[in-house]
Amino acid sequence: MRFLPIIFLAAGLLIAENTRAQGRKKSHKPVAAPAAKTDSVFIRRVFDEALLHGESYDNLRYLTGTIGGRLSGSPQAQQAVEWGKVTMEKAGFDRVYLQEVMVPHWVRGVREKGEIISSRKGKSVDVALCALGGSPSTGGKLKAGVVEVQSFEELKALPDAAVRGKFVFYNRPFDDRLIEPGAAYGGAVGQRALGAVEAGKRGAVGALVRSMTSARDDFPHTGTMRVEAATTPPAAALSTNAADQLSLLLKADPTLEFQLEMSCQTLPDEKSYNVVGEITGTAYPKEVVTVGGHLDSWDLAQGAHDDGTGCVQSIEALRLLRKAGFKPERTVRAVLFMNEENGVRGGDKYAELARQNQETHVAAIESDGGGFTPRGFQVEGSPAVIKQLQKWAPLLRPYHAADIEAGHAGTDIEPLQASVKPKALIGYKCDSQRYFDLHHSALDTFDQVNKRELELGGASMAALIYLLAKYGL
Amino acid sequence: MRFLPIIFLAAGLLIAENTRAQGRKKSHKPVAAPAAKTDSVFIRRVFDEALLHGESYDNLRYLTGTIGGRLSGSPQAQQAVEWGKVTMEKAGFDRVYLQEVMVPHWVRGVREKGEIISSRKGKSVDVALCALGGSPSTGGKLKAGVVEVQSFEELKALPDAAVRGKFVFYNRPFDDRLIEPGAAYGGAVGQRALGAVEAGKRGAVGALVRSMTSARDDFPHTGTMRVEAATTPPAAALSTNAADQLSLLLKADPTLEFQLEMSCQTLPDEKSYNVVGEITGTAYPKEVVTVGGHLDSWDLAQGAHDDGTGCVQSIEALRLLRKAGFKPERTVRAVLFMNEENGVRGGDKYAELARQNQETHVAAIESDGGGFTPRGFQVEGSPAVIKQLQKWAPLLRPYHAADIEAGHAGTDIEPLQASVKPKALIGYKCDSQRYFDLHHSALDTFDQVNKRELELGGASMAALIYLLAKYGL
Repeated sequence: MRFLPIIFLAAGLLIAENTRAQGRKKSHKPVAAPAAKTDSVFIRRVFDEALLHGESYDNLRYLTGTIGGRLSGSPQAQQAVEWGKVTMEKAGFDRVYLQEVMVPHWVRGVREKGEIISSRKGKSVDVALCALGGSPSTGGKLKAGVVEVQSFEELKALPDAAVRGKFVFYNRPFDDRLIEPGAAYGGAVGQRALGAVEAGKRGAVGALVRSMTSARDDFPHTGTMRVEAATTPPAAALSTNAADQLSLLLKADPTLEFQLEMSCQTLPDEKSYNVVGEITGTAYPKEVVTVGGHLDSWDLAQGAHDDGTGCVQSIEALRLLRKAGFKPERTVRAVLFMNEENGVRGGDKYAELARQNQETHVAAIESDGGGFTPRGFQVEGSPAVIKQLQKWAPLLRPYHAADIEAGHAGTDIEPLQASVKPKALIGYKCDSQRYFDLHHSALDTFDQVNKRELELGGASMAALIYLLAKYGL
Repeated sequence: MRFLPIIFLAAGLLIAENTRAQGRKKSHKPVAAPAAKTDSVFIRRVFDEALLHGESYDNLRYLTGTIGGRLSGSPQAQQAVEWGKVTMEKAGFDRVYLQEVMVPHWVRGVREKGEIISSRKGKSVDVALCALGGSPSTGGKLKAGVVEVQSFEELKALPDAAVRGKFVFYNRPFDDRLIEPGAAYGGAVGQRALGAVEAGKRGAVGALVRSMTSARDDFPHTGTMRVEAATTPPAAALSTNAADQLSLLLKADPTLEFQLEMSCQTLPDEKSYNVVGEITGTAYPKEVVTVGGHLDSWDLAQGAHDDGTGCVQSIEALRLLRKAGFKPERTVRAVLFMNEENGVRGGDKYAELARQNQETHVAAIESDGGGFTPRGFQVEGSPAVIKQLQKWAPLLRPYHAADIEAGHAGTDIEPLQASVKPKALIGYKCDSQRYFDLHHSALDTFDQVNKRELELGGASMAALIYLLAKYGL
């Protein structure tokens, strides 16, 4: 693109018309105008602050770059807790505190290696893989044949002799026809979550799982797997290129063997924390609007889009509201949940304490789908509640965050449903085409996050919190 | 994000419900159903082909990686012409041909260097810069004082003595409050386009222009500038970091000097070509729906988002239509325009030939805003025409490409307005938050393009071409 229409270039006229319209300085005093006007002015002010003086990008740089990957129980997770507390205190919230919670402590071993060994040539090919989170160790080198399946139905149909003593290789790809990559993930992730358990039941020695992504590359994507006591064998994720290669070689040589060596292990539970910060409601302090992301991440990368962005956006949302002079009647609260990835212990703890403290939750918002350009929000709530939220769409439309519809909200806030029953659980929805390229892999790094996309997301959440805290549901 | 709701994990049920709904194999026979149903089935087929077997990403890899940057008149531009022709022929279009056009031939010199020289310490600091396209050479080292302005008004208000013999340093940043980065670009790009001309009129020896981006980094962004015969001095773009640094140093030391050396030059015009491919209309071959991008790019990078993506999407759109079995009554045509960046000679030539050949253009679509996730289309046309296009929004909504409104369409198709007057000029609109981070800089490379985002764009254009060619306007 060279330049925009010549209107922008007319000598002297350097400011486009809509710059004036959109960017004009707003009065900071409430005006005697209809509520919608007051609201739109306030929301514009929130976006101006985010886009001109946003702090979320620099916060993310520290969390991802200086601290890095922060799996539950790791020293980095503890550093992230301390960072979260200090960052919220600096932001000047009314109250910042920790919620203690015991979390699982799984560690990836120093040995992590996979080889395809041809039965004919005796040659071996190294493949890119990683242990799935929670996997037991292989206890040295584990060599066995491989049987490939695309589904549990296929596994079920196989005779015992075809499975026993082998690796079950789950190679079901994402269905790329689906426009929402999250739906493709939903259609494939069962292999990762339950593959080892199901393979173990049939006497297999391990599970090899195609990475959960549409991308064809050499990066394995980890993620949690279910483990059922002593019967669940080790499981590894293969990069999509490695999975394609193994599948191809299996066709040529069905008797090839795979050698897996992984020294991962599960240690005793560790003490950890949710980090909570709030602006206390002036009229109804026990009525809460919560916004959160999860502080833990997988260990292979920096946990940028999953879910550093959700954390810094949650802190930023409250900072923006405070900066814009919002004094909420209801309490607004940012929560950095610990242990979303492999236990949801932080989410459970938060829900438990909310009930103990006899809090009412108007709504809980979670950002855990990446820090890309906003689209809107997905809601778990009654049709009437969804309808009410949709009435606010015109206020969010100028920022492209007006797409409000029923859908999955978030794993960390889910437990609230059974405890304090918020009227709405809300998931922040952003453009997701790139998300699973990075998700749980070494590619999920700070440089994949765009500053403006991140800031627009934090401001969108701030806008919705403002409306929820002001009007209730 | 760990995984989606437990519903996706229920043992055996590996395919999410919406996978079935969205992904089901469609009958390829036209069905006895309302037109909207037939259309939605056809469009779904187009998207399936794009997402499962799309060729645009591999085409882009070749164009950007193997050929690379391809400024008008360069050997790479000629290679791109040959690539375009071969690629369209391979895609099996009915007719592929070239349109000869003479284009400007400006070349960046081997010497390109800028230094800030403190008047106090005699020390110099190198800064990241590049010549603007079309700039004359400095003819060796050019050393002078610097006067900073934010606008032409400011320049106008300065006394001659403050400008004469100096560099005018245009340092107006993007207005980051604007939600659409294109509007911020529109508000700042006048400095780049006209800065040197205006500086020259006041007796300045050169112009230094802040790069056209919101990002703060060390990459200068080039772009075209106007040159008025012998009075226009050389001009360079400074990276935003360099501009910030120069501005800061100027405040401390207003008498500092800047030394610029650039050996760029304008050579005689070169022969080049638009590349055109078409599926000929069965009933109205002279009624045309055109889709295009521009084949030339700046020289600093690979010209991926600007505008390799537009080229491969245009070819892909026709390929998808052919593959889906579309036999249009009107001619559909993909055009790779030459010389959008510094002359629009290809666009002018295409419009001229369309008139000579007495063609009717129903509509022309241009993709020149990057290859990111679709949003919809911007239209230059009568309110009635825009309204008709908006009636098709429900067909595009499942693919998030339903945002259809009035707006700038494209530089290459603009000349058609004065020749064959299409009922609509249409710009493909995608998410643009990242675009100006890369635009005209060394960062505009293949790895910044996401495969699915690119494919969704090509399919969205194919869908609109289908509707335009089927129903007319």
